[in-house]
Amino acid sequence: MAVKETAKDALKIVMYLGSNRNPRACSRVAKFVQNALVKTNHEVTVFDPWELDLPVLKQAMMMVKDWSTLPERLVRANEALVASDAIVVVSGEYNHSIPPALSNLIDHFPLSSYAFKVSAIVCYSPGPYGGMRAAMQLRAMLGEIGTVSIPNIFGIPRVTGALSEEGEPLNDHMESGVGKLITQLDWYAKAIRDRKRENGTP
Amino acid sequence: MAVKETAKDALKIVMYLGSNRNPRACSRVAKFVQNALVKTNHEVTVFDPWELDLPVLKQAMMMVKDWSTLPERLVRANEALVASDAIVVVSGEYNHSIPPALSNLIDHFPLSSYAFKVSAIVCYSPGPYGGMRAAMQLRAMLGEIGTVSIPNIFGIPRVTGALSEEGEPLNDHMESGVGKLITQLDWYAKAIRDRKRENGTP
Amino acid sequence: MAVKETAKDALKIVMYLGSNRNPRACSRVAKFVQNALVKTNHEVTVFDPWELDLPVLKQAMMMVKDWSTLPERLVRANEALVASDAIVVVSGEYNHSIPPALSNLIDHFPLSSYAFKVSAIVCYSPGPYGGMRAAMQLRAMLGEIGTVSIPNIFGIPRVTGALSEEGEPLNDHMESGVGKLITQLDWYAKAIRDRKRENGTP
Amino acid sequence: MAVKETAKDALKIVMYLGSNRNPRACSRVAKFVQNALVKTNHEVTVFDPWELDLPVLKQAMMMVKDWSTLPERLVRANEALVASDAIVVVSGEYNHSIPPALSNLIDHFPLSSYAFKVSAIVCYSPGPYGGMRAAMQLRAMLGEIGTVSIPNIFGIPRVTGALSEEGEPLNDHMESGVGKLITQLDWYAKAIRDRKRENGTP
Repeated sequence: MAVKETAKDALKIVMYLGSNRNPRACSRVAKFVQNALVKTNHEVTVFDPWELDLPVLKQAMMMVKDWSTLPERLVRANEALVASDAIVVVSGEYNHSIPPALSNLIDHFPLSSYAFKVSAIVCYSPGPYGGMRAAMQLRAMLGEIGTVSIPNIFGIPRVTGALSEEGEPLNDHMESGVGKLITQLDWYAKAIRDRKRENGTP
Repeated sequence: MAVKETAKDALKIVMYLGSNRNPRACSRVAKFVQNALVKTNHEVTVFDPWELDLPVLKQAMMMVKDWSTLPERLVRANEALVASDAIVVVSGEYNHSIPPALSNLIDHFPLSSYAFKVSAIVCYSPGPYGGMRAAMQLRAMLGEIGTVSIPNIFGIPRVTGALSEEGEPLNDHMESGVGKLITQLDWYAKAIRDRKRENGTP
Repeated sequence: MAVKETAKDALKIVMYLGSNRNPRACSRVAKFVQNALVKTNHEVTVFDPWELDLPVLKQAMMMVKDWSTLPERLVRANEALVASDAIVVVSGEYNHSIPPALSNLIDHFPLSSYAFKVSAIVCYSPGPYGGMRAAMQLRAMLGEIGTVSIPNIFGIPRVTGALSEEGEPLNDHMESGVGKLITQLDWYAKAIRDRKRENGTP
Repeated sequence: MAVKETAKDALKIVMYLGSNRNPRACSRVAKFVQNALVKTNHEVTVFDPWELDLPVLKQAMMMVKDWSTLPERLVRANEALVASDAIVVVSGEYNHSIPPALSNLIDHFPLSSYAFKVSAIVCYSPGPYGGMRAAMQLRAMLGEIGTVSIPNIFGIPRVTGALSEEGEPLNDHMESGVGKLITQLDWYAKAIRDRKRENGTP
């Protein structure tokens, strides 16, 4: 993996967290993935349900006419999303399904903010299966909101033994796993970005 | 369909709604299904995200030691769930996925409250596919929380043309559709209830 | 787990294998699960795609009027399925999806042969995630064919290190994992069987 | 929709059919989609399980060292797949799941033949839900084999009333539905193709 970018051409990535608690296992995975993205010259903006603290969705942004009635932080977040090239979801699972805090966060934004973007999934679990059950629902959802989900999914079983609290890898699979994911994400996101620049979108 | 019950042996059903708005298409479906359940001698308790108005899940009930710190309405709802024989989910879809208000509601309760219960899915959409995409994620989730999902799924495409605001059927498929669902739900829920009474649970 | 049965009341289980090769990792899992089922007084009939050697489905049995034109082994297998109380699927994944040999085998039989039966999933993988991606599709499929899928799924990551070729457990999770699955399967299958005996089916 | 191509730059599309029978509803959908693709200057090669008549997968091509032992038609089909830019799957559902003839066909080919390709789903059903349940499993599978699945899915409920046997549209939704799908497919497939030409693949 040798993704090298001039700063001006760096991909803009929005990283969604799936956890609505703090402290949480999600933080170690998020730190690790964010570090790996930054090292490979990607710009990362984090969407954290715990910080954004949004209510359970009643009306999505696209149904609201006057956005001045919306929380400022939600409008700011949407601007970052619109400006981004790709999204990366870092999530565990809740009852082996998508955590409600995550689907709630995803659903707040207009579909137009997701259109013609690339998405990637990093999932984890305290136990043996790496969050793959929620990841399967998430891949479906990421397609339905209008992103193309890259084939590679990076799943981390027994997460507290795999990454330290500071997001340092504790086994040999972490670096290669995240590397494969980022290489693929970078490739697809640039394919999409370049076509948008040259041809616009339909 | 000829499900007849003495009041004392009626199945107790908790009906989850998937909508966090009001007014909403969900109400017409909920009224229709509730009427059909009551007519066939089932007792129905409604769990409505809009009325229960729960925050985005931070900590599930099973993680909370002192339930006196929880909202009274949540503790009451859990008591109704524990006392129930089956759950029926009446939901549309959000971005063709499970509405966050619904997964949030489901996830608040302890897994022990769902164990050895039967579940059924009624889904709908304003458009042609009847909410089947969310239903597929929902069937997975209902299994993972510990219920057995009955095979029949009752999907209602173009819902506002299928049921009136008062929940009256506007086409020929509604009565037969809900009838099949309830017959199957009733059969399975009694199978499970009777074994629980005689043998307990493992 | 203390499931004890007189021979006459033993549950009849059909065990589907997902592998169409031989030798294969599937055999060690199948032996292990079959041994565990027999030890707990269950009768097991194995449906093996490699032995049954069915063609890719053109016409399901329920579309065929004259079953004397069908392979004898298929008609015999269907008789065993009709007589059974539950099915257990033991399968890896193919491209992280249901192996075609398995869906092909399942689809040959009439839906009436599956109705009011209980199903359980044992999945495995050579790698870390235990076959959970295929299991999610399989749980959906098992619902759609008319069975109720028990909540517990027994997933075995790194299968060749977990079970010997003879189906002997090589780590501590195997016995407890299969035990939980069988206890739950047994409980649900008897609930369904007893209601069928007493009330028939709708 | 105004996708116009010089012949030399036309996208090469492989169209997978999901049906292993003849006559079949699949043919009317396939004709309709193929016509629409050709009219918009795409080259289409059809992979038809009924014509290719492959056995139930025992060993995928990537496991076979000497391809001269394989059926000639399978090796030829793989060459067409390797040369293609995108795949379109036209499929109904079997027990609301992926037809085994389709997953069998998909699984025969090496993963390297799918890598960095775009995929699209056209699904249909005789009844009301348009095959969306199988489509959800198919989207998962298309990701796992290494393609990126475009967000739009074109589902056709009550297919025999929607398209004639010759693939002529019988209602107003057909042209707009296939148009949206092709516009999106074309856009993504060119994004991917252009980046492959200029940068290769990782």
